[in-house]
Amino acid sequence: MSKEKIAVAYSGGLDTSVMIKWLKDKYEGAEIVAVTGNLGQKMEIDNLEPKAIATGAASFHFVDLRKTFVEEYIWKALKAGALYEDVYPLATALGRPLLAKALVDVALAEGCTMLTHGCTGKGNDQVRFEVTFAALAPQMSVIAPLRIWEFTSREQEIAYAMEHNIPVSATKKNPYSIDENIWGISIECGVLEDPMVAPPADAYQITTAPEKAPDEPTVVDIDFVEGVPVALDGQQMEGLDLIVKLNELGAKNGVGRLDMIENRVVGIKSREIYEAPAATILHFAHRELERLTLEKSVFQYKKNISQDYANIIYNGTWFSPMREALDAFVNETQKPVTGMVRLKLYKGSVILLGRTSPNSLYNEALATYTEADTFDHKSAEGFIKIYGLGLKTFHEVNKG
Amino acid sequence: MSKEKIAVAYSGGLDTSVMIKWLKDKYEGAEIVAVTGNLGQKMEIDNLEPKAIATGAASFHFVDLRKTFVEEYIWKALKAGALYEDVYPLATALGRPLLAKALVDVALAEGCTMLTHGCTGKGNDQVRFEVTFAALAPQMSVIAPLRIWEFTSREQEIAYAMEHNIPVSATKKNPYSIDENIWGISIECGVLEDPMVAPPADAYQITTAPEKAPDEPTVVDIDFVEGVPVALDGQQMEGLDLIVKLNELGAKNGVGRLDMIENRVVGIKSREIYEAPAATILHFAHRELERLTLEKSVFQYKKNISQDYANIIYNGTWFSPMREALDAFVNETQKPVTGMVRLKLYKGSVILLGRTSPNSLYNEALATYTEADTFDHKSAEGFIKIYGLGLKTFHEVNKG
Amino acid sequence: MSKEKIAVAYSGGLDTSVMIKWLKDKYEGAEIVAVTGNLGQKMEIDNLEPKAIATGAASFHFVDLRKTFVEEYIWKALKAGALYEDVYPLATALGRPLLAKALVDVALAEGCTMLTHGCTGKGNDQVRFEVTFAALAPQMSVIAPLRIWEFTSREQEIAYAMEHNIPVSATKKNPYSIDENIWGISIECGVLEDPMVAPPADAYQITTAPEKAPDEPTVVDIDFVEGVPVALDGQQMEGLDLIVKLNELGAKNGVGRLDMIENRVVGIKSREIYEAPAATILHFAHRELERLTLEKSVFQYKKNISQDYANIIYNGTWFSPMREALDAFVNETQKPVTGMVRLKLYKGSVILLGRTSPNSLYNEALATYTEADTFDHKSAEGFIKIYGLGLKTFHEVNKG
Amino acid sequence: MSKEKIAVAYSGGLDTSVMIKWLKDKYEGAEIVAVTGNLGQKMEIDNLEPKAIATGAASFHFVDLRKTFVEEYIWKALKAGALYEDVYPLATALGRPLLAKALVDVALAEGCTMLTHGCTGKGNDQVRFEVTFAALAPQMSVIAPLRIWEFTSREQEIAYAMEHNIPVSATKKNPYSIDENIWGISIECGVLEDPMVAPPADAYQITTAPEKAPDEPTVVDIDFVEGVPVALDGQQMEGLDLIVKLNELGAKNGVGRLDMIENRVVGIKSREIYEAPAATILHFAHRELERLTLEKSVFQYKKNISQDYANIIYNGTWFSPMREALDAFVNETQKPVTGMVRLKLYKGSVILLGRTSPNSLYNEALATYTEADTFDHKSAEGFIKIYGLGLKTFHEVNKG
Repeated sequence: MSKEKIAVAYSGGLDTSVMIKWLKDKYEGAEIVAVTGNLGQKMEIDNLEPKAIATGAASFHFVDLRKTFVEEYIWKALKAGALYEDVYPLATALGRPLLAKALVDVALAEGCTMLTHGCTGKGNDQVRFEVTFAALAPQMSVIAPLRIWEFTSREQEIAYAMEHNIPVSATKKNPYSIDENIWGISIECGVLEDPMVAPPADAYQITTAPEKAPDEPTVVDIDFVEGVPVALDGQQMEGLDLIVKLNELGAKNGVGRLDMIENRVVGIKSREIYEAPAATILHFAHRELERLTLEKSVFQYKKNISQDYANIIYNGTWFSPMREALDAFVNETQKPVTGMVRLKLYKGSVILLGRTSPNSLYNEALATYTEADTFDHKSAEGFIKIYGLGLKTFHEVNKG
Repeated sequence: MSKEKIAVAYSGGLDTSVMIKWLKDKYEGAEIVAVTGNLGQKMEIDNLEPKAIATGAASFHFVDLRKTFVEEYIWKALKAGALYEDVYPLATALGRPLLAKALVDVALAEGCTMLTHGCTGKGNDQVRFEVTFAALAPQMSVIAPLRIWEFTSREQEIAYAMEHNIPVSATKKNPYSIDENIWGISIECGVLEDPMVAPPADAYQITTAPEKAPDEPTVVDIDFVEGVPVALDGQQMEGLDLIVKLNELGAKNGVGRLDMIENRVVGIKSREIYEAPAATILHFAHRELERLTLEKSVFQYKKNISQDYANIIYNGTWFSPMREALDAFVNETQKPVTGMVRLKLYKGSVILLGRTSPNSLYNEALATYTEADTFDHKSAEGFIKIYGLGLKTFHEVNKG
Repeated sequence: MSKEKIAVAYSGGLDTSVMIKWLKDKYEGAEIVAVTGNLGQKMEIDNLEPKAIATGAASFHFVDLRKTFVEEYIWKALKAGALYEDVYPLATALGRPLLAKALVDVALAEGCTMLTHGCTGKGNDQVRFEVTFAALAPQMSVIAPLRIWEFTSREQEIAYAMEHNIPVSATKKNPYSIDENIWGISIECGVLEDPMVAPPADAYQITTAPEKAPDEPTVVDIDFVEGVPVALDGQQMEGLDLIVKLNELGAKNGVGRLDMIENRVVGIKSREIYEAPAATILHFAHRELERLTLEKSVFQYKKNISQDYANIIYNGTWFSPMREALDAFVNETQKPVTGMVRLKLYKGSVILLGRTSPNSLYNEALATYTEADTFDHKSAEGFIKIYGLGLKTFHEVNKG
Repeated sequence: MSKEKIAVAYSGGLDTSVMIKWLKDKYEGAEIVAVTGNLGQKMEIDNLEPKAIATGAASFHFVDLRKTFVEEYIWKALKAGALYEDVYPLATALGRPLLAKALVDVALAEGCTMLTHGCTGKGNDQVRFEVTFAALAPQMSVIAPLRIWEFTSREQEIAYAMEHNIPVSATKKNPYSIDENIWGISIECGVLEDPMVAPPADAYQITTAPEKAPDEPTVVDIDFVEGVPVALDGQQMEGLDLIVKLNELGAKNGVGRLDMIENRVVGIKSREIYEAPAATILHFAHRELERLTLEKSVFQYKKNISQDYANIIYNGTWFSPMREALDAFVNETQKPVTGMVRLKLYKGSVILLGRTSPNSLYNEALATYTEADTFDHKSAEGFIKIYGLGLKTFHEVNKG
């Protein structure tokens, strides 16, 4: 059997560091290609290359995915209104297919024979990685070491690392398991596993507690063009910069903390904490602009599409004809979603101050109760007669 | 033609006061039966009887609907998760069919020949009243004076009132149009007709502004049994009392202010302000308990039902087989929704502190990442292979 | 007041003939522009111009809409799978917005001030015409003579016609009310108004009764490219010709008779008979090809879209952002719907003989129960464990 | 380790016969409890007890499930309108949870420790069995021999059977794989695995080919009470008898043949042939009665519920809160579904002759175009104005 060349989705943390050595043992003489994607995370991204090489990787690739992530993933999810179970803006979930695709791209370029990731057997991320692998590179084999290896605790992994001179971070272990990208942070484990325990202060990584946020609110104006945010306080900005800035403003004002029991792909409920200031603000603003510019049936119909779209992202089926068909629907709906929304960020809340659009369907002449009213009130009688006719007939026939 | 006997949905305000006299003119010799329903509103409910009689009504009926409203309307909407366009808890909309039913009941008991209300021709309430009339009393005729009478301004109505010695309130007109019941307050008109104008301080009738709310949060424990709230801070309470108390606690902490552009039944968008502290808190708590206790597919499916149920209420088709079929669905889902939710109310926000239930489907032994884990990680490989097989086949066939 | 110039949707039948004179009376000196659209109907299309002029029209326009109808309306409905209440292929309903648009186009070109049609006040077609008018020409006024004129019976109209020398057909009145275009025929009224009366033989205009159809079946092969039929029995054909041919083959074999109680837009149930051989055959074939080529979730999701799309057509909201958004969804799904379906037409039935596609997702190597099987049976254990885990947990918690 | 006592879902065919011996080998000394459920199948049900015992079973249980199957499973599916992917009436799928429940019931009564079935690893039935086991008896272990045993062909199983003196049927193997119960028959494998091959004559087990069916049609009247069929041609019948009779009448007239490519639970498409005369007739009749008696929004809404309900059955999650919640919805809708439908069965077709109900919402006085018309035509103008107002506004704002 020829030697394997294995592409590893590498984070620099304990699991993926130990994995490199473990894979070389399991597949004797295997060549490890370590790949890290930059999705805007700030933790653990320095000195990854020397660390990967020291750990045993033959090569290391750091792929900057930020612009693609914003424009091809985040904006699609935003336009679709994708919040999993109405709450979670899907930061980690959105990043996985892109990371998986980047891994496949490197693996194909480097002639790898195998793909691997550092996900456990009970999470969603294994599904997102492997379904993407199956879609984009069905010919490659896949291994998920964490599902099958011998280690049953972090301590055992550390012992193995020390035994094999694998450099692992000397810093004290974070009591939580954390995943981070520009669209949000997921926090789980530790005391959070008890649904009656409120998240301790140290669980939150970037947001100020509402109680400690400034007494003075922050007001922001956000401009959208066809559903995509393009400017902050009147100033045009690249998507990436706009998200960074809103994360900063939101975090300062305690905005974007989420605490939920959610339904995983693999049949269990888990308790998750999220921080997503920019995502929270942008979804709120986008939705308010849709209230102003979408025709009623489109607005209401799209609500169901939002849930379905969120499920697709959450469930790892990003590369699918279903997602593409929903994107086509969503893009068509976004044509009139251009305008500005003004918000106040204050001690954890996002408060609407105003919204305006050249495509506004709010027609003051129709809506007003002043004498400027142009609505034909007399039409209502005929409308209601016919509108209620079916129910009237039903009740006449089905008495009591 | 025999004399008409007309049941009037009477509020004591200018419109319905003028209407009594106007109807007696239009239907010579008509006998007016004025009916006011008590839905827990606090404004304009004193001295209604003498006022109605002085205005020309032959009789006045004050019907206490509060308990029915809570138990037969509000709890159903709460269990269904009914928020119109994801925001509005439907206070006025929920009250209308009950008021209409109460009017029909009095009308039948009194032998009335005609039903009337004080709604305009461009609002939702005329639809809710008249569809209920058509369902419950198709044999009676209906008149909606505001759609057809000669007055085109408030000033003309006042002149008519003074000319005919109709007692009208001497207090300065509220700059807004307000409707109130125990489940919430609707505020519209005036400067609110401009969607770029944030609600002025005087628009809100009961809630403290977040900025002026106490620095010290309020913590509440809410107990539910099969989806219905039954206790506050461990103390069993009647539904009505529980709502009153939560309105007070929420209002104090700036909770329950809503500002939306919404789609009316009659084809226009309008801008509405709502205050609904108890409704906001209870919907939030109820939903969190559902996250803990509902099986995944039920939880996600019910989201669509919620939207449909909200539309039914909003659109005035409460008395319908559709609503009853959805109630049957909802009631079945609520069987396990028993438990407690702990919340913090703070300067406009509702923050989740914890949730617990004897029927919790969150299983720490399955969810944990500690060594107590009982989840079979190795099952995941087979799961993902089959879960992703359809997409794998699709991509193999449909390349690029 | 200046003279009106009125565009009339003219059919040459009694109603629209009488209408021309009636409008000239009502709007003194009005100039009538008669417009007939050709949607492939065969009845009453000869000598329309002299008839219209003799009746009093100032000008007559015969617009050939057939190619547009097939390509821009029928194929969209077919790709969407649009069958109203699962049965009716929407022939008349699809034609109305196009006729209305053609009328508006002529009216704009001719400088008309008013639009009119010959629909009654209880049907769907008035809604389809007038909603299209409101969307495309909101500045024009609209009149619907049949809703308001003085005639209450056909006899009165004939008397009026004779009095004013309006030429009306001498042929005996058809006992049914019939509307016809290339996509199907609607038949109503007369004895059909009783839902317990089976349609008499003379109700059907083009189809042979199954009992009288040939003993020898007809076999047809239909080729589709991206959801659109392009060939019959291997021979490329224009859409119009293909439909004409399938109408002929289907009619001969008794295919395409439909008999339904349906829910109208205006709140009543009506009983309708349809004949739609080509539509029946093409919807059947298209659906079978989708079963072969659509990914599971797309196939199942699209079913709901089909119902919504059918409702849009039926309800007259063709010119709407909702329809355009659904079209975007549908078009995306149709990319793989290329292939051939073989059918047998026999005494009223359409029987599937086979289907094949270069994009077939049916994979015999995966599906077979022979030794050629490549499916990994052992994956199933893990799959089912995780697939059933949520329900297992639910039942453990909620016993009995 | 103590000896296992294993409950086997026994059919008497090759697989489950071989399985008994194989299990006794694998679990040394295991005691086998063979269980066969009677769902109305006619094939292979004689002499099952001696055969099971001869094969090595310690005991045999023949459980008559027919009445329960009809009343607790089939009628629910019929009322729900459950047709998988719009075609398949779910005969096998409906039977599996009941068989699984019967197996669990015997296993609990007999003190078994393990459950097993004879399904392969790529079908739907394994899922239906095991999800039911997980729901009803999570404490028991489950084994699926066909997924893991050493035999890779029928021939190997036969050799094993002969070697161990297991009595197997001497009759020539049917070229198809067949499953049968009172609600229908599934046929797969052999030449049917090619989607371009029309089912050969011998594939169909009970239905006459349309071409060979009688020239004289059969007319049947079917009475329903609240959605459940109760009489045939005016004669009250038990559900079981009624289905048997309709299977006979339908089969004679070539009714109920189905040929589809369907999406399995396990990610593949398969080609299935079904015969389901009674199910086809009853679903058709039930639906027509619903058209007459259900209020419009209920009728249209229920269509989506039907698809979801069918998926639940197909996917094996019968014992679930989701199915129970949908049942509650469906049962509420069925209250007015009482009446009679008259059908003609003719050479493969079901043709509607008439329908009538005391709860009919078809109101001839409203629907008629004769002078008896009571519909208020003038209401339509106001109705359409308001109905089209939103689109009018949309088009005014979004030009072109």
